[in-house]
Amino acid sequence: MTESDLGSDLGSDLGSDGAAVTAIAAQGVLTIDLGAIAANWRQLRDRARPAECAAVVKADAYGLGAARVVPALAAAGCQTFFVATFDEGVLARGALSRGAAADRAAEPVIYVLNGAPAGAEAEFARWRLRPVLNSLAEIDAWAAASRAAGHPLPAALHLDTGMSRLGLDAGEQRRLAAFPERVAAIGLTLLISHLACADEPDHPMNGEQRRRFTAAAAMLPACRRSFANSSGVFLGPAYHLQLVRPGAALYGIAPTAGAPNPMAGVVALHGRVLQVREIDTPRTVGYGASHRVDGPTRIATVSVGYADGFLRSLSNRGCGFIGGHTVPLVGRVSMDLTTFDVSAVPPERLTAGAAMELIGPNRPVDAVAEAAGTIGYEVLTSLGRRYHRVYRGEMKAVPC
Amino acid sequence: MTESDLGSDLGSDLGSDGAAVTAIAAQGVLTIDLGAIAANWRQLRDRARPAECAAVVKADAYGLGAARVVPALAAAGCQTFFVATFDEGVLARGALSRGAAADRAAEPVIYVLNGAPAGAEAEFARWRLRPVLNSLAEIDAWAAASRAAGHPLPAALHLDTGMSRLGLDAGEQRRLAAFPERVAAIGLTLLISHLACADEPDHPMNGEQRRRFTAAAAMLPACRRSFANSSGVFLGPAYHLQLVRPGAALYGIAPTAGAPNPMAGVVALHGRVLQVREIDTPRTVGYGASHRVDGPTRIATVSVGYADGFLRSLSNRGCGFIGGHTVPLVGRVSMDLTTFDVSAVPPERLTAGAAMELIGPNRPVDAVAEAAGTIGYEVLTSLGRRYHRVYRGEMKAVPC
Repeated sequence: MTESDLGSDLGSDLGSDGAAVTAIAAQGVLTIDLGAIAANWRQLRDRARPAECAAVVKADAYGLGAARVVPALAAAGCQTFFVATFDEGVLARGALSRGAAADRAAEPVIYVLNGAPAGAEAEFARWRLRPVLNSLAEIDAWAAASRAAGHPLPAALHLDTGMSRLGLDAGEQRRLAAFPERVAAIGLTLLISHLACADEPDHPMNGEQRRRFTAAAAMLPACRRSFANSSGVFLGPAYHLQLVRPGAALYGIAPTAGAPNPMAGVVALHGRVLQVREIDTPRTVGYGASHRVDGPTRIATVSVGYADGFLRSLSNRGCGFIGGHTVPLVGRVSMDLTTFDVSAVPPERLTAGAAMELIGPNRPVDAVAEAAGTIGYEVLTSLGRRYHRVYRGEMKAVPC
Repeated sequence: MTESDLGSDLGSDLGSDGAAVTAIAAQGVLTIDLGAIAANWRQLRDRARPAECAAVVKADAYGLGAARVVPALAAAGCQTFFVATFDEGVLARGALSRGAAADRAAEPVIYVLNGAPAGAEAEFARWRLRPVLNSLAEIDAWAAASRAAGHPLPAALHLDTGMSRLGLDAGEQRRLAAFPERVAAIGLTLLISHLACADEPDHPMNGEQRRRFTAAAAMLPACRRSFANSSGVFLGPAYHLQLVRPGAALYGIAPTAGAPNPMAGVVALHGRVLQVREIDTPRTVGYGASHRVDGPTRIATVSVGYADGFLRSLSNRGCGFIGGHTVPLVGRVSMDLTTFDVSAVPPERLTAGAAMELIGPNRPVDAVAEAAGTIGYEVLTSLGRRYHRVYRGEMKAVPC
């Protein structure tokens, strides 16, 4: 999407009813390209073949709206989804049952990465959610739920190989291997582990984790295995195993640090210029008077702030794009407003209501993240609730 | 609220129905004390007398839920509210019309700080929202809307005195003073300006802005004036004028840098311990292997991450509180998970499901913000959507 697609006024193509008022009065316009997400999934699927390509849609599909993203991925052919929590699983199940893929033969599979909290097992089964079991206690609770259900309930098992975060550690792996009947009591469908440094292809941790995963899995019953996140897909076939589970790359985040980004851009965020100010006497801008203007300067105040997830760490470091120019963010990001030095932009491009690109082709998510001192993932999951959200590129065709 | 209030399991007091499953499976429990917000408002009201005390409830009441906070403040006696956008104004108007204060003689006033976008004036009037007009063009558009309505529509006027962000600059202020009929065409109810450095009582900017505001207001028709945000209330009576408009202090954020915080704590956030891991061989924790464990260590993985607004900049810097101990956050904050070194905590306090305080009496909002390199405002407005939200202390009594 280009700047001109939005016209000079963010609400220009929205009619004149109440929705238009909301649109022009919103903090900004967030455009999410579902077609680009589907294209990214297909690219990853092709790269990972013959492994199955799943999709990670936790954290509301990285902030982009799981209710819209999950059906779009299912329509593209995705059969397996990963979420973090029970609530997210229920939402995904509902979205899938309403989607175009609802009538296909095999119901899509949903794994819940954070496992099933004690007492919630029956509800997991009711919503046909498969927990990723992270401990011996969770395995035993799931076995009890299986007995209560009268058949082994499907679940994945997480083997920790170096994140030290979730999953069975080496000691638990050995204990489990010594008592295989504990695994036999559940419907084990997948063994997973998680890479800590996959975005750095040369990091020794990658090979070390692979050795540990292979050794741990060899002690357990034969089962499909999954290792690769987005970056892991790009580590090569040795990391693909039977199922890859990309998340970030689906949403346009570069999978490999320092390398060109092969993924299509998915997100565009445009703020609205509320006011343009000509400053001709020395003056400070914003809270804490952290930016000083000494000569003639034009400052644009834009309708997006840190309460919209435009991170405060972008203060005096971020950029916008308007009228063909990259413009520096000056002063501190406020809760609802941000100021930019637009001295280089022709005044006729700076009318009240003009759209400034804050994320998009000229300001990729990863560049915004770098300016903010974080990663693209946090830029996406922080995207706020005050934007007017526009979804594009929904696939209408038959899955390919 | 103390740690023990939550019991050892976050879902323990929530019954056994579907809601309980959601509660125990949620990323964490966010407790918001509406009684503390009302008490903070009364404290500020008493400090600002005889000025009126308004309340800033923009950004969904700083992330705490305007639909609940606005009626609680109205019940405490607040008559004037400030929001940032049209949508927020409509939400506040709806919340007020449903609240206990709906039947009082004078309908509460709602100001929209970001002004009325061109074309939205009639909708503002329909919802009885008063824009804070930031430019001559906005004044003229509001005057046109007033003529269309057949009477002067009420609005505030924002005079910029040093933020260089929104409001009439010095040149516009002079032009307006030279043509008083432009103001006469609207129902001017309030003149506002905004302090840039009020949290630093000795900052020369405060006095400078006060001089500019006094001089600018003197050129315009006599009108009530408002200058003080939360920190401004604590700068003393010279800054109170006719109306103060605190936001942050209502929600428990310290109004004055470096001074003891006189406000009551409002927010408690508890994450759930998903897993506890004993590490006895050298090992790294989390993404990028950024934290190394060399000796025997106990690591707790907690169900909150940066997608929940637990900022990623807390990586290797934040803390939690559990079992009477402050415990360091180790490794990087993940999207849905965070790891803490809980070696100092007795193992019996670390069962799966145990509650860890991440914000609360032992981890005040401002301390969390300092560890994250930001301000308490951003900690609050970032609070995510995956928490189970519990509101306490709703006032049932008659306004005092």
